[in-house]
Amino acid sequence: MPRSSRSQHSDSGPGARSGAADAAPAAPSDDRIRAESAAEHPLEAPGEDWSVLPRPAERTAPPRIQILSPAPMIDCGRFAAKRTVGEWVDVSADVFRDGHEIIRAVVRYRGPGDEDWREAPMRWIDRDVDGDRWASAFEVDRVGRWEFTFEAWSDLLATWRDELRRKLEAGQRDLRGELSEGVVLLEEARDRANGADRRLVEHVLQTLADDATPEEAKHDAVLAPELLAAVERHPDRHDATRLDRIIPLEVERERARFGAWYELFPRSFGGFEGVRRQLPRLAELGFDVIYLPPIHPIGHTNRKGRNNSLEAAPGDPGSPWAIGSEEGGHEAINPELGTVEEFERLVSEAREHGLEIALDFAIQCSADHPWLREHPEWFNRRPDGTLKYAENPPKRYQDIYNVNWDCEDWRGLWNALRDIVLLWSQRGVRIFRVDNPHTKPLAFWEWLISEIRARYPDVILLSEAFTRRVKLRALAKAGFGQSYTYFTWKNSRHELTEYVNELAYSGMQEYCRPNFFVNTPDILNEYLVHGGPPAFVTRVVLAATLSPTYGVYSGFENFENVPLAPDSEEYLNSEKYEIKQRRLDGPLLPTIARINRIRRENAALQHLSNITFLETENEGLIAYHKRWGDNVIIVVVCLDAHTPQEGVAVVPAWLGLPPAFAVEDLLDGERFDWRLGRNYVRLGPGERMAHILRIAA
Amino acid sequence: MPRSSRSQHSDSGPGARSGAADAAPAAPSDDRIRAESAAEHPLEAPGEDWSVLPRPAERTAPPRIQILSPAPMIDCGRFAAKRTVGEWVDVSADVFRDGHEIIRAVVRYRGPGDEDWREAPMRWIDRDVDGDRWASAFEVDRVGRWEFTFEAWSDLLATWRDELRRKLEAGQRDLRGELSEGVVLLEEARDRANGADRRLVEHVLQTLADDATPEEAKHDAVLAPELLAAVERHPDRHDATRLDRIIPLEVERERARFGAWYELFPRSFGGFEGVRRQLPRLAELGFDVIYLPPIHPIGHTNRKGRNNSLEAAPGDPGSPWAIGSEEGGHEAINPELGTVEEFERLVSEAREHGLEIALDFAIQCSADHPWLREHPEWFNRRPDGTLKYAENPPKRYQDIYNVNWDCEDWRGLWNALRDIVLLWSQRGVRIFRVDNPHTKPLAFWEWLISEIRARYPDVILLSEAFTRRVKLRALAKAGFGQSYTYFTWKNSRHELTEYVNELAYSGMQEYCRPNFFVNTPDILNEYLVHGGPPAFVTRVVLAATLSPTYGVYSGFENFENVPLAPDSEEYLNSEKYEIKQRRLDGPLLPTIARINRIRRENAALQHLSNITFLETENEGLIAYHKRWGDNVIIVVVCLDAHTPQEGVAVVPAWLGLPPAFAVEDLLDGERFDWRLGRNYVRLGPGERMAHILRIAA
Repeated sequence: MPRSSRSQHSDSGPGARSGAADAAPAAPSDDRIRAESAAEHPLEAPGEDWSVLPRPAERTAPPRIQILSPAPMIDCGRFAAKRTVGEWVDVSADVFRDGHEIIRAVVRYRGPGDEDWREAPMRWIDRDVDGDRWASAFEVDRVGRWEFTFEAWSDLLATWRDELRRKLEAGQRDLRGELSEGVVLLEEARDRANGADRRLVEHVLQTLADDATPEEAKHDAVLAPELLAAVERHPDRHDATRLDRIIPLEVERERARFGAWYELFPRSFGGFEGVRRQLPRLAELGFDVIYLPPIHPIGHTNRKGRNNSLEAAPGDPGSPWAIGSEEGGHEAINPELGTVEEFERLVSEAREHGLEIALDFAIQCSADHPWLREHPEWFNRRPDGTLKYAENPPKRYQDIYNVNWDCEDWRGLWNALRDIVLLWSQRGVRIFRVDNPHTKPLAFWEWLISEIRARYPDVILLSEAFTRRVKLRALAKAGFGQSYTYFTWKNSRHELTEYVNELAYSGMQEYCRPNFFVNTPDILNEYLVHGGPPAFVTRVVLAATLSPTYGVYSGFENFENVPLAPDSEEYLNSEKYEIKQRRLDGPLLPTIARINRIRRENAALQHLSNITFLETENEGLIAYHKRWGDNVIIVVVCLDAHTPQEGVAVVPAWLGLPPAFAVEDLLDGERFDWRLGRNYVRLGPGERMAHILRIAA
Repeated sequence: MPRSSRSQHSDSGPGARSGAADAAPAAPSDDRIRAESAAEHPLEAPGEDWSVLPRPAERTAPPRIQILSPAPMIDCGRFAAKRTVGEWVDVSADVFRDGHEIIRAVVRYRGPGDEDWREAPMRWIDRDVDGDRWASAFEVDRVGRWEFTFEAWSDLLATWRDELRRKLEAGQRDLRGELSEGVVLLEEARDRANGADRRLVEHVLQTLADDATPEEAKHDAVLAPELLAAVERHPDRHDATRLDRIIPLEVERERARFGAWYELFPRSFGGFEGVRRQLPRLAELGFDVIYLPPIHPIGHTNRKGRNNSLEAAPGDPGSPWAIGSEEGGHEAINPELGTVEEFERLVSEAREHGLEIALDFAIQCSADHPWLREHPEWFNRRPDGTLKYAENPPKRYQDIYNVNWDCEDWRGLWNALRDIVLLWSQRGVRIFRVDNPHTKPLAFWEWLISEIRARYPDVILLSEAFTRRVKLRALAKAGFGQSYTYFTWKNSRHELTEYVNELAYSGMQEYCRPNFFVNTPDILNEYLVHGGPPAFVTRVVLAATLSPTYGVYSGFENFENVPLAPDSEEYLNSEKYEIKQRRLDGPLLPTIARINRIRRENAALQHLSNITFLETENEGLIAYHKRWGDNVIIVVVCLDAHTPQEGVAVVPAWLGLPPAFAVEDLLDGERFDWRLGRNYVRLGPGERMAHILRIAA
């Protein structure tokens, strides 16, 4: 539209017009005259922000096809959904247009570094209650930032063919007009096609042009499925509509989704060399990740003593989370554990055993950390210039200084922290467990993770965000590949069902991968305190079969469960403040090893959002079904650590299992005959606490 | 960051670095050296798209506060949520930051044409399961496009005050360091404040500076609530974070939300003059909107006869939807109904009675429409140049031509259609019922509605989109102020409950306003066919009390229910094809008039998303509770048109009603004593079909 006509309109119309917007009817006067010349109005509207509107000034009409509600998309594309290498990404969108034309749609996607887009066809989901939902899937075969979007177009030839078919089926016979329309579409199709497809279309066009050919033969020729297939290999996308955005998708390696973790304090195993000697045993137990609390020098000033006492006794080793001494900070190694070379040998040998060493990344400094001298500007100070230790009134953490994220040299601070993670990555570490990330800026994590993964795309970060859901989720969105969860506090059937369904189906599954630790140095749940050994079996079976990734902190296998105080979640004589003499000989280890083997051999246990909880008719029993391809697992666990429970596991028909089927308990090899409907189950202390049943193929 | 250092980094590092990203541990060689100089790396990352990341190159650190998941927002802000004048808009967002600092947040909003933003404080919703949800509300006082967004900041003084209080409560006494921090914050606050607030802060500062003042008095001074209030009137927003987008909100007048419609064919009332004589009666019946099917000249070519027969008999008037003849098209009036002047008088007099005339806007042309001669390029043609009538094989609509939305002169076509609506708006019409909008491009509607509402902001458009949910919803998002629904096909308790809950609570309520017509010229539901007069009472009570807007097509009040064929939803001898002699004397009219009065007198019935369905312990009875302020209504309706039903209405305690309360049936004035819990109800044919109960204040 020429600008002059727009100005002209602004001059002549809108003022008077907005008067006519009153509720009173327009008088049959000047307004009428304007209305009758309304066709001269330019299409652009006067003085409004039309940015969201279609632009009729374009040469062609705005697209007829709409693409809305794409999935998976996190916060309007602000964050990326997550997948792991080898997974198929299910994508979908509402795709529709006015009229009855047949639509084709594709997902367009590309991997990190790809210039070109690949495409996969979308299919209409005919069971969607809202109609108009289309879906597709594509495989992601390497780590990094992928992208996808959608494109759809009207298939005029398929539409025409379908209408012709319907007319013939209704008995209409004089379809010469229709055939003349088809000739136009087929000529265009011929010009797009090549090779055998082009020859086929040309042949049909000749048939249509041949006056000697009976009408019925012409109908048969244009309705032949081979013709449609040939034309659709060279689609006419002249009206193709694209989604108005490109959606990010972050792909990590498989370990981000599936793995068994074991947390140990290396000082309780004789340092790095002691841990290294345990690698064959740890591998034999089926663990994938060995997570070490901070391995850096520990501060002396205000060092905590045993049981978190304010004054350390001589020889007390202090908490590994009080990072930094005159021997160095986050870049250094506590000499009591070993040397850099010994650490690197540990990392390297672990890999030879199929194990990975995960490090702790805790952004806090003891009073003796070199940064307090070298970069006093990175820490909080009082008006008198003195440093401020960490506190959350009335609690005081005199042995810890938090960094000041608002300091002027925040860039220097961010860089230094990034370089710490880069350094340990260069030393071979590819998994970091991040301490309390929710007390640091989200923007920092988003930047840091991108920085690290730009250089080491296979780095995985685990978020220890024991905080409210919104923050926990935001950290996962910002890039943490795994998250600690509320699992330790979910012990009843109702709690577990509700919580796992939330993780698996609320939308969180698109970006938040749970890591179900059964205990941590900070969390000894009362269920373990009161339940004793049967509770330990129950919890480790639940963690290892509900979540693809789970973890055990050492001591669990010994049924350690004495709390610091009756209502405390702290361990008595916590390893955080003293050195234990650990050996990997706890009575629960054979069970854990078996569970880890079961997990590796059964793909159904390596995924999260494939779970269906089953009715048990007893709150003391929980049961769930997981399927991946042909692999079908049913787990039944007794939640009562004191009394055996009898109940059932109800297998609904819609799960698609046969009316009767054999199951094998992978924990002990025993076999049972099960069926759709109610299956009697009895589990409990003194007997067995759980079934992990595999359905015979 | 200087560009040179970025290039330097690219030259020296990333190639070698990406090699280090392999799973194999880094050898303690060159890589080590690079790591130890990592602090020299620029903060920008090499060769990636960082557009979604924070920009550490900014002078200040990225915001600590996050604002996510704003509501209401439709399709990431692509479309506007809707409200009506006088409503309060509930808005909310996840607002959080790392650390323990106290947050303040506001919603910022402005109306159409406003330069300045207004603000309303947000409050933390302490019952939200996810935590961190903040909410506010603002009133919209005029029609047009509003906007809102959110802003939040850390309240450092309130945080400091809260920590001081907690320390005092914990018995800490030496707080001189803390007070010295407070002085800094209070000095800044003094500099921001003015008037009495400034004097108060200054006074407290003097108290703190006075060595003679006891520490306890200083604590009291800084903890005084008046001080906090004074400071917070002049907040320090230095770290304020804004949502990254401005969210649109479309405000229409109240009639878009609440109204009673009556549809009539003016030719059955003696044309415009005949309808005009009925205005007092229509007003007395309590209707708000009188909707007229198309009033334009009707085509002669292929005119439909009675009962949709293919050949019209002499004198058959034809379907009003076959628009256009030699007497004119969409801009013209069928001379059998009257003149433009008579129409304008009808519109004008209707307003004097508190009524509005709504017109039909149907984009289709009879063979005799002037546009077929004047603009043949706007219509579909076959290759031989002949015009194509409308069809959906095997159905053929020989009396109708659809426009070709893909024609080259689509701009001219769009303009002409826009001008039609503008013309009738200038003739005083402010409500349009749009025929089959789902068969026209969504982009056209979005443009058209914006065009019309830019000139006549009080125009309301009703979408007749009997189509799948996704399309129905998309048209509402595109700007239609009301939508026909699936109500006529929802007759069981389960269907009604599920459907109304979907409309009221699924998110649709933000942009889609239902208009519950009990019948239309196209829809005579089998429930009315089989149920007879009791079914008519049931359906009109349901429509008028479930939905703030509802409608009746004339004949309903006479219990007309003879279908064209046993399984047809068409009326026998449909008024679409013949002229009836209508009088407003049907036996159901007194009930309808009473219901309309009840609706006007009870605000609870003027809203949608205030409904709670109540248990009735009988599928033949449906009950629901609606509250608006002090106005509380409970409706109970018998769904069985053949047999009286006994049951209960269960009033749950959480609705907040007293243990026992009096109710008045507004339909007949009878009073009952009700209570929390189960209340006996008996309703049915031969007795009364429904209660509309008002709880005594």
